[in-house]
Amino acid sequence: MATSFFEGPEKKVEWVVVDGFPSLRSLGDERWEGIVRAARAQIISKLSSERCDAYLLSESTLLVYDEHATLITCGRTRLVDAVECALETIPPQAIAFLVLERKNEHFPREQPTDFATDARRLSELLPGRALRFGAEHSHAIELFHTLRPYEPDAEDTTLEVLMHGIAEAANPFRGDGGSDALARARSVGLGNVIPGFAVDDHAFTPAGYSLNALRGPHYFTFHVTPEDVGSYASFETNVDHRADPELVLRVVEPFRPQAFDVFAYAPDGEALSLEVPGYVLHQHVTAPVCGYGVSFLHFCRPAAGATGATPIALG
Amino acid sequence: MATSFFEGPEKKVEWVVVDGFPSLRSLGDERWEGIVRAARAQIISKLSSERCDAYLLSESTLLVYDEHATLITCGRTRLVDAVECALETIPPQAIAFLVLERKNEHFPREQPTDFATDARRLSELLPGRALRFGAEHSHAIELFHTLRPYEPDAEDTTLEVLMHGIAEAANPFRGDGGSDALARARSVGLGNVIPGFAVDDHAFTPAGYSLNALRGPHYFTFHVTPEDVGSYASFETNVDHRADPELVLRVVEPFRPQAFDVFAYAPDGEALSLEVPGYVLHQHVTAPVCGYGVSFLHFCRPAAGATGATPIALG
Repeated sequence: MATSFFEGPEKKVEWVVVDGFPSLRSLGDERWEGIVRAARAQIISKLSSERCDAYLLSESTLLVYDEHATLITCGRTRLVDAVECALETIPPQAIAFLVLERKNEHFPREQPTDFATDARRLSELLPGRALRFGAEHSHAIELFHTLRPYEPDAEDTTLEVLMHGIAEAANPFRGDGGSDALARARSVGLGNVIPGFAVDDHAFTPAGYSLNALRGPHYFTFHVTPEDVGSYASFETNVDHRADPELVLRVVEPFRPQAFDVFAYAPDGEALSLEVPGYVLHQHVTAPVCGYGVSFLHFCRPAAGATGATPIALG
Repeated sequence: MATSFFEGPEKKVEWVVVDGFPSLRSLGDERWEGIVRAARAQIISKLSSERCDAYLLSESTLLVYDEHATLITCGRTRLVDAVECALETIPPQAIAFLVLERKNEHFPREQPTDFATDARRLSELLPGRALRFGAEHSHAIELFHTLRPYEPDAEDTTLEVLMHGIAEAANPFRGDGGSDALARARSVGLGNVIPGFAVDDHAFTPAGYSLNALRGPHYFTFHVTPEDVGSYASFETNVDHRADPELVLRVVEPFRPQAFDVFAYAPDGEALSLEVPGYVLHQHVTAPVCGYGVSFLHFCRPAAGATGATPIALG
């Protein structure tokens, strides 16, 4: 790779512990820092509500609740190493449900492992199965989940929006990590995409922006990779997207992506349908996963006219 | 990779020799076999017209004319090794024009090299530059070409159609390489997509189908990878596509791909515009390359409804 790039598309793991297991929040910052370091990332800051500790990481986000945790990492991190590290503290029999996701990367040859290798390692610790949502020639999410019977809470939804090709809208996030950079990034107003949340955000050097937001039991998080090659932004929330049909539109609008995925979990096996003005739904995949209906929708924007080719440095 | 797959998307090199250089056809079968072997492929059969020798390969096609040659290979072949081998016979100063293309692969981690590495190796032999047609998060063709001034003939067009996600239409190509398999593949009628051509075709074991067709100075070629994971078919011709606006439609129709690219060269820098019923144009990139107008168009089919997720074997 002669061209400078950052791998924005994330790996994600979420696990829920069985009833009666001690609070995951009580593990403390130091233990969580060790788990994050196992993935080759670092904790930058922490925002807490009465229900959740949201850690902003050098590569994305860690959310810790009493009974469940979500770790999202990007770049060249090794997320499965962090799961192995966590399972030294949390015995596998205390895991009620675990799911690992990997979005197909922009630069897969630069990754230390592929999804199948990650999933096989996890399956040696926790019996599970793997699924691909989306076509192997296009955008896709690969997912590993445990097989233990599990019933999600009636309010337990997750919405992810993964946006590719945001170079047109990435200028405010191309700062150098200084205070001006943070002010420019904040001017986009991502912290208000759902009102009333406390916000913790960070502008990275040489570029990039991350934001965690909390309101009681609810979170949302943005991560922006503004580099021309591999430009990308992601959003995730546990606010009930079924009650806010305009939410995806509000998330997508500031980034004007060439293409984006919506990946959603809803209890009771409910599948998501969605139309987004200005975009064509190219892929729509749904499957039941441990009591959730999981839906993958890939949207792409029709070409507005011909553009030029992109030079590739050979130096 | 636990899942069985074949990498259909091709690498391609075309070169033209300077006026006065001996006929490339006169190099003879043995020398060409050595060049093909350098890429880790083999010659299966040969079809000749008064102007061209068309070799069907274990991985795609070699077309040899007096003054130019096109070598297309798929799978895990090492096409740049074949170029280095050819340049032992054809000195670099005898190369009037050379272009290398690589479609982004379904399984890039399984490839021995990436495009940038290939292009850097070529640039040490022949001064050149590299371009990407298409977005790095989506379908794209990366291209290296020489910098020497070059003027294409007025009739010198190329049309490539690269079709992804053809599993629905791949049954006739899922044979075992026997005579029934060949008859089933032939029943699709790919040899008649342009009438009046002599045809040389082959059904592969365990699956797959290739076809070369010649009529005087004109060729067309099909290569079909029918495996469920990574299903793919490609078409290429030097018949003037500008005079046959329905050609792309006739090529695409038997395969009903989820998505496809059109990649076209036309002399005089002319860019291609195209609409294809049932598909949305998602990417449109054009650039001048050594007197050609080169156009990349990526089309995708709107989702017709939700499908299920695909199991990934962990065995």
